[in-house]
Amino acid sequence: MKKLINDPQDVVAESLEGFALAHPDVVQVHTDPLFVTRAGGAVPGKVGLVSGGGAGHEPLHTGFVGVGMLDAAVPGAVFTSPTPDQIAPAIAAADGGAGVLTIVKNYTGDVLNFETAAELADADGITVRQVVVNDDVAVEDSLYTAGRRGVAGTVAVEKIAGAAAERGDDLDAVAAVAQRVVDNVRTMGLALTACTVPHVGGPSFDLGDDEIEIGIGIHGEPGRHRVGLESADALTEKLLTPVVDDLGLTGGEQALLLVNGMGGTPLSELYVVYRRARALLAARGVAVTRSLVGNYVTSLDMQGVSVTVLRLDDELTALWDAPVRTTALRW
Amino acid sequence: MKKLINDPQDVVAESLEGFALAHPDVVQVHTDPLFVTRAGGAVPGKVGLVSGGGAGHEPLHTGFVGVGMLDAAVPGAVFTSPTPDQIAPAIAAADGGAGVLTIVKNYTGDVLNFETAAELADADGITVRQVVVNDDVAVEDSLYTAGRRGVAGTVAVEKIAGAAAERGDDLDAVAAVAQRVVDNVRTMGLALTACTVPHVGGPSFDLGDDEIEIGIGIHGEPGRHRVGLESADALTEKLLTPVVDDLGLTGGEQALLLVNGMGGTPLSELYVVYRRARALLAARGVAVTRSLVGNYVTSLDMQGVSVTVLRLDDELTALWDAPVRTTALRW
Repeated sequence: MKKLINDPQDVVAESLEGFALAHPDVVQVHTDPLFVTRAGGAVPGKVGLVSGGGAGHEPLHTGFVGVGMLDAAVPGAVFTSPTPDQIAPAIAAADGGAGVLTIVKNYTGDVLNFETAAELADADGITVRQVVVNDDVAVEDSLYTAGRRGVAGTVAVEKIAGAAAERGDDLDAVAAVAQRVVDNVRTMGLALTACTVPHVGGPSFDLGDDEIEIGIGIHGEPGRHRVGLESADALTEKLLTPVVDDLGLTGGEQALLLVNGMGGTPLSELYVVYRRARALLAARGVAVTRSLVGNYVTSLDMQGVSVTVLRLDDELTALWDAPVRTTALRW
Repeated sequence: MKKLINDPQDVVAESLEGFALAHPDVVQVHTDPLFVTRAGGAVPGKVGLVSGGGAGHEPLHTGFVGVGMLDAAVPGAVFTSPTPDQIAPAIAAADGGAGVLTIVKNYTGDVLNFETAAELADADGITVRQVVVNDDVAVEDSLYTAGRRGVAGTVAVEKIAGAAAERGDDLDAVAAVAQRVVDNVRTMGLALTACTVPHVGGPSFDLGDDEIEIGIGIHGEPGRHRVGLESADALTEKLLTPVVDDLGLTGGEQALLLVNGMGGTPLSELYVVYRRARALLAARGVAVTRSLVGNYVTSLDMQGVSVTVLRLDDELTALWDAPVRTTALRW
């Protein structure tokens, strides 16, 4: 295994130590237990936003902590849920007195641990609401999930809910807009290569030199099926079609298109996929009015891509456009 | 070869077609010949900034076109210099009447073709100055270079010269500050894996499962030497030490530290390297006052990292901090 790491057990803590040193104006890293907050701490009177999950998907979630997005993020070990003992103090640190919304990707361990943490916080007098992201249309009930998995659509949920909290919406309103994003966002991904988990030391699954896994999640878990080598245009259609069909997106509607790299895919290839996805959406009469292309929800060094579509209306567009100042998204 | 591409001959054009569709507010892509300008075109009275080089290093250079940085970028085929016939129209499109500075990485083909293009532009009455970036301390006179290669330090040259042009400096002054960055920036990189060039179809060089290439450039050309598997901390020291020594950086000085991924390296590992580089600089009494961590000057899907140090003073710091609005750098 070739990796730029020291002891595999230390990679999450050491990486976050570097992260804190590089961005003291944006984030603060807390140790024992490990979580990340905005540099300035909780904002009095504002609804707090907390997310988290296994490490290995960077910049998700730590890269989305900052003004206009999350107040705190809680990383577990690589591909491992954070514990309630980590999450509860993060919720407390994010609470500015107006309650906290947790944004949780739909994996059984994550959902359970965030719920337990919410109970702990509630016992301390903090009102907590939870929204579960389940945007992956590839499979129902995967290895780690009851129902659909939460993947790259999480970025849109965190950005838009973050903007709603920032403008002063109350907890019910922030939870409602977050749920509205969940209801209107769908994703599907593929992998060209498996990823290598540091403490495992080998590829997360076996994929032949002439095979591509369609419908992959973000942990190297199995997808829908395998295909041989195909053109980027053909592969993009295999991702976009089920996303748009599941969403029931029709001509005349507006959408945000996110083409997300899994960590090891060159940026130039993501734009090749984006180009084809745009053409397919245009052929259906869907107007792409907002876009994001890059590595945002990754699986370590996996080569692959996911395509996410979010149905937009005027309010969601305005919240997407609102200023954001994190290490991974900034405008 | 597994890649998200269609015909290898079309990858640069198709990728830029997607790039243009995704970012119409920032860039405009011109075809026949192929080059990229700011969406608004040349700024009257402002010194124009043009860079370029072979594709495959994205987001360099196209991702740095926008307010506060480049006016135009000219991509060649993958790892191939753009032609004078492409560069000259890009210079003309970037000229706002105050002359144009070209920023050229030190590769023989790039330097020659930019010089020829400058002569063509001069014949059309445009004053052109050129600065050559040669920050790679790994080797003198590589396969493609007389003297040192130009690598990740190019980001700092383009950002700082861009800010100087934006504040209204004249051509001599912008050229002088760009040269001052070149004189004060050094880089060294390593590769864990080779990259795969689309029209070649195989790895750019052979590297064993237990080998790391130290002193790699950004085209998969040979480096200084090979080592076995080592910790991130040990490898970081092998990169940082020659950089700081060559720069003659001493205690009490301030620096910008750029940890740059080669395209296929997880962000989390870049922060592990950053952490160690910070500790080594602190031990030498050097204060890191500005930082950048991410994939900025890449080699397609290569796994690897480079460490860049720029000696800072108050003026360079202020120019680095000035607003920038490109697709890859934004603050």
